[in-house]
Amino acid sequence: MDKMKALVFRNPGKLELTEIPIPKVTQPDDVLLKIKAVGICGTDVKILEGKHHFKPDTVLGHEFCGEVIEVGSHVNYIKVGDRVAIDNNIRCGFCSFCRMGMSSQCVEIKFNALGVMRDGGYAEYCVVPEKQCFVLPDEIDDVLGTQVETLATVVNGMNTLQMLPYDYVMVIGFGPIGYLFAQFAKNIAAKVAVTEIDPFRINVAKECGLTVWNPHEVDVVQKITDFTYGRKADIVIEATGNALAQALQCVTPGGKVLPFGMDSSVHIDVVPNEITRWATKVLGLYLGQNTMVPSIRIFQENRLNMKPFFTKVIPLEDGPEAFCDLGLDPATLTHGPKKAMKIVMKP
Amino acid sequence: MDKMKALVFRNPGKLELTEIPIPKVTQPDDVLLKIKAVGICGTDVKILEGKHHFKPDTVLGHEFCGEVIEVGSHVNYIKVGDRVAIDNNIRCGFCSFCRMGMSSQCVEIKFNALGVMRDGGYAEYCVVPEKQCFVLPDEIDDVLGTQVETLATVVNGMNTLQMLPYDYVMVIGFGPIGYLFAQFAKNIAAKVAVTEIDPFRINVAKECGLTVWNPHEVDVVQKITDFTYGRKADIVIEATGNALAQALQCVTPGGKVLPFGMDSSVHIDVVPNEITRWATKVLGLYLGQNTMVPSIRIFQENRLNMKPFFTKVIPLEDGPEAFCDLGLDPATLTHGPKKAMKIVMKP
Amino acid sequence: MDKMKALVFRNPGKLELTEIPIPKVTQPDDVLLKIKAVGICGTDVKILEGKHHFKPDTVLGHEFCGEVIEVGSHVNYIKVGDRVAIDNNIRCGFCSFCRMGMSSQCVEIKFNALGVMRDGGYAEYCVVPEKQCFVLPDEIDDVLGTQVETLATVVNGMNTLQMLPYDYVMVIGFGPIGYLFAQFAKNIAAKVAVTEIDPFRINVAKECGLTVWNPHEVDVVQKITDFTYGRKADIVIEATGNALAQALQCVTPGGKVLPFGMDSSVHIDVVPNEITRWATKVLGLYLGQNTMVPSIRIFQENRLNMKPFFTKVIPLEDGPEAFCDLGLDPATLTHGPKKAMKIVMKP
Amino acid sequence: MDKMKALVFRNPGKLELTEIPIPKVTQPDDVLLKIKAVGICGTDVKILEGKHHFKPDTVLGHEFCGEVIEVGSHVNYIKVGDRVAIDNNIRCGFCSFCRMGMSSQCVEIKFNALGVMRDGGYAEYCVVPEKQCFVLPDEIDDVLGTQVETLATVVNGMNTLQMLPYDYVMVIGFGPIGYLFAQFAKNIAAKVAVTEIDPFRINVAKECGLTVWNPHEVDVVQKITDFTYGRKADIVIEATGNALAQALQCVTPGGKVLPFGMDSSVHIDVVPNEITRWATKVLGLYLGQNTMVPSIRIFQENRLNMKPFFTKVIPLEDGPEAFCDLGLDPATLTHGPKKAMKIVMKP
Repeated sequence: MDKMKALVFRNPGKLELTEIPIPKVTQPDDVLLKIKAVGICGTDVKILEGKHHFKPDTVLGHEFCGEVIEVGSHVNYIKVGDRVAIDNNIRCGFCSFCRMGMSSQCVEIKFNALGVMRDGGYAEYCVVPEKQCFVLPDEIDDVLGTQVETLATVVNGMNTLQMLPYDYVMVIGFGPIGYLFAQFAKNIAAKVAVTEIDPFRINVAKECGLTVWNPHEVDVVQKITDFTYGRKADIVIEATGNALAQALQCVTPGGKVLPFGMDSSVHIDVVPNEITRWATKVLGLYLGQNTMVPSIRIFQENRLNMKPFFTKVIPLEDGPEAFCDLGLDPATLTHGPKKAMKIVMKP
Repeated sequence: MDKMKALVFRNPGKLELTEIPIPKVTQPDDVLLKIKAVGICGTDVKILEGKHHFKPDTVLGHEFCGEVIEVGSHVNYIKVGDRVAIDNNIRCGFCSFCRMGMSSQCVEIKFNALGVMRDGGYAEYCVVPEKQCFVLPDEIDDVLGTQVETLATVVNGMNTLQMLPYDYVMVIGFGPIGYLFAQFAKNIAAKVAVTEIDPFRINVAKECGLTVWNPHEVDVVQKITDFTYGRKADIVIEATGNALAQALQCVTPGGKVLPFGMDSSVHIDVVPNEITRWATKVLGLYLGQNTMVPSIRIFQENRLNMKPFFTKVIPLEDGPEAFCDLGLDPATLTHGPKKAMKIVMKP
Repeated sequence: MDKMKALVFRNPGKLELTEIPIPKVTQPDDVLLKIKAVGICGTDVKILEGKHHFKPDTVLGHEFCGEVIEVGSHVNYIKVGDRVAIDNNIRCGFCSFCRMGMSSQCVEIKFNALGVMRDGGYAEYCVVPEKQCFVLPDEIDDVLGTQVETLATVVNGMNTLQMLPYDYVMVIGFGPIGYLFAQFAKNIAAKVAVTEIDPFRINVAKECGLTVWNPHEVDVVQKITDFTYGRKADIVIEATGNALAQALQCVTPGGKVLPFGMDSSVHIDVVPNEITRWATKVLGLYLGQNTMVPSIRIFQENRLNMKPFFTKVIPLEDGPEAFCDLGLDPATLTHGPKKAMKIVMKP
Repeated sequence: MDKMKALVFRNPGKLELTEIPIPKVTQPDDVLLKIKAVGICGTDVKILEGKHHFKPDTVLGHEFCGEVIEVGSHVNYIKVGDRVAIDNNIRCGFCSFCRMGMSSQCVEIKFNALGVMRDGGYAEYCVVPEKQCFVLPDEIDDVLGTQVETLATVVNGMNTLQMLPYDYVMVIGFGPIGYLFAQFAKNIAAKVAVTEIDPFRINVAKECGLTVWNPHEVDVVQKITDFTYGRKADIVIEATGNALAQALQCVTPGGKVLPFGMDSSVHIDVVPNEITRWATKVLGLYLGQNTMVPSIRIFQENRLNMKPFFTKVIPLEDGPEAFCDLGLDPATLTHGPKKAMKIVMKP
């Protein structure tokens, strides 16, 4: 029992199924987990593609939950046997951002993310600091448990947006993040519409009962104008990373734009005068922050329709080829149509 | 007494001192004012230059106060003899923006602004709707009374920024708007620095005891980084219209940028990913909103150092040449160095 | 056509069906309405009982909509033929509260409320100022149109509460106001429970699929503690007027209490130390404010389950006896069990 | 060097100067401090009086700063030689309050406060967890450094109040907490007045240039009404623990009341209807939260007039008798007039 299966990211295009030593508890606050399930995130796709910062020879996987099987000498709250969801972003707790309540801007956050810069959840076991663990209630199964952190980033967005029951909402991009925002808007807002170009995901949106537009086929600015009786959207959530310019055109005077999707290669031309004249609020935010417990609450009460969210659950061994379903052929680093919303692996 | 002196804007470059009929009360909610004083706004300079939307043959002047000398049949609150400051922006009260508390985005606001689209305060008399009038207390003299509406736009900015006592603040541009924001920051914030390129205004900033940097001479990003012990500014107020790109570089992660200056000819290149990654909040806003009374309160208690603000008070007749002091030669439409912060005329 | 039917409040206990002259347009901003429907509000019950401030010989009714059939000389936005919902609370627009955006605290609001201090909607016709009128879209029928102002007060509560998707919510009292808050919480929050003592209304809550407790039968503090896994409610909405002490016991540390119900005869004993120690936020608010248009948006999209809300629609003539269904026998001023949630009259 | 001087609280009325062993680093996150200075807090007075929860045989003192002289094995950020201010309230980091960003409501906070439930700063040395330490810049001397945590609680109040430049502010009680709030209000608000009954502290208020009223001598409600031109205060800060009823009378409609002072023996009679009708916001809060760094920023820039704040600096040995200056005779547990604002001891 000294070795475990793991999917190790070697270099762009190279995700290797291999055996590596089971990690050990070495720090007083370390917790050793047996991984129960792990999701494949769009960020993992970008890492494999080489379009996100990465560290070679790392076990990927930052959307995971597991069972605690060993704890360090100074672990006081988490116990062996706990089933826990993981916040993969380790915040130092000592920089001025952490200490002013803005831990998503921790100065160390980039350097030690689980599944990116240190070994994560594409494996049978993983060591994490105690403070990254959040006990799961029985109502949340292992597959759903992988998405607590994903939801936590979206809940941070919801905290920032303060969506109201009379808001008209538009979500640009219907990947997993757009999906979760759209479910919240469906519950809360007066009206919601989503845009998406991928046929598979357009169908998921329809399955969810959502109004969905393909920006390659229709004039989205005209659509949102008509949809809102001429007013445009009070809230536009940009969940692709490449459509902030469009978002600014779709938002009503005084409205809010949430640039949530991330793509550092995208530049846009902005006329600052228009942001001023139309009193637009562009509300950047990054990751979750104090939102793991809230996300657990929401999943526990089954408040979001998560059925169409999970396309399939597969064994760890099938992970590499699952990237094709997410639009990336790892062998050639070429893109194809997506055939999945979210894929979860069980080691 | 049928005629009055007025400065009429004919066309770009042409501001004519002439005699025109005294306007009459015709609507039930009309109020006739004898103008006591009127300020020259940067917007007036842009109108004269032809760089702001305008209407030929209009009496300019939207920063004014006066004494009520006649009221219409349905005027119920303002009385003859009242000395009043004017909100020059007439909001319809019936569009969905007005009715949802966002009157600065009134759909009619552009079409009937006093001193822009209908006759304003560069004259001996002016007719305004009752609801634009705000009674002035004795502590506010006529010259200061012209700036209530100016301050009201800044107070709307302060309401949006929610400046806290531990904020580090940077104000880009030290014209009248930057001046007012800087005074607030000096009262409230932990530290404040301003930037300005005009020598006259740099000296005013120094006279106010402010830290001031000339971006033509120093590296402003480095300056604000050092000034804040490496943190950068929590709040950056852009009060020129052309420096939003710089503002985004000077703000700390999670900080707020207020794009307040307006120049519709300016385009900037933005990487949306950086707004997301650094959780920047870009908070566009326009004009004042519910802020005339608050501004009167602030001036009444003498809470801002307004002495260096007023460069001179002149008779209406000297108005046209005063534009030279504000950096524009009306005759040639060429620009020169500024020799004033704020100039006020008395008819 | 000079006379019309009306229900005139004479004195406590006396609501008289009679004929009175049709009111006339006399002010430049007057609008004459043909009433389409009018709801009976709990406040009307209190007025009839003599437990609310009142003015004898007034046509009651402040929840109404109608068709515009005549307009004054200075009515510019509302047109003959418009079907409009009415905000019965006339705000002066000139006091410092109105002018600072807090019109619900207008210093004149108490003195000229339609249906309380001047003639309202329990009649065939009514004159109202133009600014009280809000055009209804076709999706909102006359019966629902009577409740726009009711919803507007609740939406003001929602604006104040900023309810989040992970909140646990408790609503004390399931009358029409509690009903509307509970519908919002059902859409938005993680969990919601309501309390009610009246059997009829308990059944309506069940029909709405809500968790409901009778505080006469169960220990509500224990119930909310268990319901929230030991945490208590993040938000407690007190919609009876007599249970703020209980609300303070049911709210979680750092949570919000909305004292919404009104009963000036109720006193409670408070230990301020507990508000401080448990960081409770008690958020008083009164009436709607900028919330008529938002309420129309919500009803237009059919976002609330309003079917069980309307118990019956009756002719104006049957109004007096309908008060019995609302728990008050006007003849004897004695109370009985309620047999209705909301009753609407059509003149 | 194994023993140190300390003031040990034995039982109500008994504060003993004695020698006890120097505490040792035992936990991996422990830090051993040489105390530089420690303030006497009003809470210490209450503990000595037996009116606050206490633990016998504890070294009191929770307002302190010191120099780090030894660190545990897992201390990663704080270094030997650092001069640090201490947050005496240890939050677990794992309860749902901590994890939702509301650490002031941590479920363990009451059980392990430094200087209350475990040994604090009335001594030469103290052991504290690393996360309680905040490095002090040179601009803050040892005496001022003792008040960082005090200011942190007040800054949490400021964060909650969101004081604006046009607010009228009233502070009830001019002890150290009232002092700090009043200084902020003096910087930020349009006007501020304070109330105080103790002659010594009334004089300090005057020395600070503040408007001060003695509620035993004048009608405070009338005073604040006149002071605000009839409007009453937008913000009332209750910093005594026994005047919330008065605070509710002094606040303007729609205004905010901060019940900050704590006295669990006080009960008041409240009419909930008035909170509702006048839209009062009662904003309970407890301790600081994310506010140690902000407080350091404020002191570092010398933004508050702290000179009249410190009445005297004394050696540890003189501590017991200093309580007399703070109004309590420990020998008899009787109260006398105060002769100090803040007293700081140097071990």
